[in-house]
Amino acid sequence: MTLRIGVVGGGQLARMMIAPAVEIGIDLRVLAEEAGMSAALAASAVGDYRDSATVLEFARDVDVITFDHEHVPQDVLADLVAAGVSVHPSPEALAVAQDKLVMRARLAELGMPQPEWAAVTTTQDLQDFLDAHGGSAVVKTPRGGYDGKGVRVVHAATEADDWFAALAEDARGGALLVEELVDFSRELAQQVARRPSGQMRAYPVVETVQRGGVCAEVIAPAPHAGARLIDVARQIGETIAEGLGVTGMLAVELFETTDERLLVNELAMRPHNSGHWSQDGAVTGQFEQHLRAVLDLPLGDPSPRAAWSVMVNILGGPADGGLEERFAAAMADHPEAKVHTYGKAPRPGRKVGHVTAAGPDLDDAVYQARAAASVFLG
Amino acid sequence: MTLRIGVVGGGQLARMMIAPAVEIGIDLRVLAEEAGMSAALAASAVGDYRDSATVLEFARDVDVITFDHEHVPQDVLADLVAAGVSVHPSPEALAVAQDKLVMRARLAELGMPQPEWAAVTTTQDLQDFLDAHGGSAVVKTPRGGYDGKGVRVVHAATEADDWFAALAEDARGGALLVEELVDFSRELAQQVARRPSGQMRAYPVVETVQRGGVCAEVIAPAPHAGARLIDVARQIGETIAEGLGVTGMLAVELFETTDERLLVNELAMRPHNSGHWSQDGAVTGQFEQHLRAVLDLPLGDPSPRAAWSVMVNILGGPADGGLEERFAAAMADHPEAKVHTYGKAPRPGRKVGHVTAAGPDLDDAVYQARAAASVFLG
Repeated sequence: MTLRIGVVGGGQLARMMIAPAVEIGIDLRVLAEEAGMSAALAASAVGDYRDSATVLEFARDVDVITFDHEHVPQDVLADLVAAGVSVHPSPEALAVAQDKLVMRARLAELGMPQPEWAAVTTTQDLQDFLDAHGGSAVVKTPRGGYDGKGVRVVHAATEADDWFAALAEDARGGALLVEELVDFSRELAQQVARRPSGQMRAYPVVETVQRGGVCAEVIAPAPHAGARLIDVARQIGETIAEGLGVTGMLAVELFETTDERLLVNELAMRPHNSGHWSQDGAVTGQFEQHLRAVLDLPLGDPSPRAAWSVMVNILGGPADGGLEERFAAAMADHPEAKVHTYGKAPRPGRKVGHVTAAGPDLDDAVYQARAAASVFLG
Repeated sequence: MTLRIGVVGGGQLARMMIAPAVEIGIDLRVLAEEAGMSAALAASAVGDYRDSATVLEFARDVDVITFDHEHVPQDVLADLVAAGVSVHPSPEALAVAQDKLVMRARLAELGMPQPEWAAVTTTQDLQDFLDAHGGSAVVKTPRGGYDGKGVRVVHAATEADDWFAALAEDARGGALLVEELVDFSRELAQQVARRPSGQMRAYPVVETVQRGGVCAEVIAPAPHAGARLIDVARQIGETIAEGLGVTGMLAVELFETTDERLLVNELAMRPHNSGHWSQDGAVTGQFEQHLRAVLDLPLGDPSPRAAWSVMVNILGGPADGGLEERFAAAMADHPEAKVHTYGKAPRPGRKVGHVTAAGPDLDDAVYQARAAASVFLG
């Protein structure tokens, strides 16, 4: 019997599951938000993922439901489970990824190192936190943020007044998350795959470079990473994956502080931009690994294929024309680079593709990936 | 403007073009012989590739037509060209791959080393050839053979009487191809990609192991291959690609004789079983390379990613049940193996998938690939 996976959401993460699904021989079906999305080739349905009837109908002929994003409402997830659908990651795990206050509380329970944080419901609460943390902090809306959205560095409590006002109007009520401004030397990411039956495989910890709150580059493995850092990062990833019962891919975004601690910044319970290098650079890419994990198939080897892999996002794309019009120039000058595009129209700041390069020399791989990606810009 | 490739034929070679097409961002459409074939996910039409109207209709909205196989009749190809469709490889090149007598004659014109051969139209012609070559020879039907079909070793001219009788009934008339029985130590294959504008990239020469006329295993690069052999194989491949004006992937099957010569056995103008290792084992896999070549995009780096890559075909598949039911066992014991299946029902001798393994140690890669493939048998 053919194995059938249903993916809710038609974005680039669903799109990038298509290649390994075809290679292995898994029937991948996508519920896309609209026609013509990144994962259109595998879209068997178009509809609203916030509508239980739509999602239940989509789920009827698949073995497992998984996700392109973490935004499916808990009531829809509950209806899936009640209907006997296998859902990975589970609603309980997703609840932690869907709310940053829940995440901070659960990570604290698990004893995970993280920035100092608080739930604040008033400007005075926030001012108190600022006063106790040198006058600066990061304020986050607990829900709906991504790629830097819903995140704001503040130096005065009044800078979050619009969000407090919005909270007051939100029927859910609730609080904002405030976190200390961490003095970090760089950002890292640790990915772990976990099966429902418990098996885990950790990818090498990678260095991520963010620009304007958006992932711009990833180097795998993280340069200058000693055995202790590698070990601590893996333990954090595995503790969270197991502690939260994550199934599929988990990404843990980490700060490496100037005093050499690792603090958990964000979680993602799906394939993640920090793991795109693995499509070309690891024996088992994160998209194949996610498919295997949610089907509870034995996990693949996450080892790197080369000493260094570098991923550079194509952010925005060409000022005129499509990405396709730059293929020839990029491929002519960088025959060893791997070009990935998402079938999305270029727009300032939008993630429309990425490039990877790999090899024995880090500087060369960085140069090749950056130079090839830059052909798609301007 | 999205680049659109139309592939005539819905078999596993078309299927394996889907992954790189999605990754790069190329709109791949397939004209499948019937519903539910290997490349069904990308099938935009189902119909008979021998019918000009069907193929012309399919070709209307694509930038280039290419092929899953070499069986499209010349009159259909001519109609495509007359309609202004870009066809790669060209009808002229395909004509050489479609008829082994034409191939032998053209290779002779190009000065390529090949077995002694003759076109024979009568039993007496064949007997004369046998008498001149130690009493044994290989007889081949010029058209329609593949995977050992249409190939017969004979020791007496009467052993080809049925084929002579069939020829007499065939309106095209014609002859059989007879070739000397080559005393070879092993079989090799040389792949070359060539763009319409002339750029070529050669893959490393590989060793192929045939069983019952069907490719069973491939080792890349060919073990114990000295600089001279590598050089001669590449020159043969490039001379043929250029001499015949091949566009896309060319595979040249070679005999390495016991006296260390290389002789051309067969040609294929498409991605080829001898290159499946490159999907996982080369920087640019043969399927991506074929797409780039037929679109006249700059070719990718064909370098191996590991010291050794091994491909083992899954021939026949499980005696009961589908390949999927063996996924867990194969993946549990061989996390570093890459499993590829073609969406075809198991049947004795049928190519239903393959496994690759790669690494620094040849014996280990051979073991892993063979052991993982064997999980799918019996």
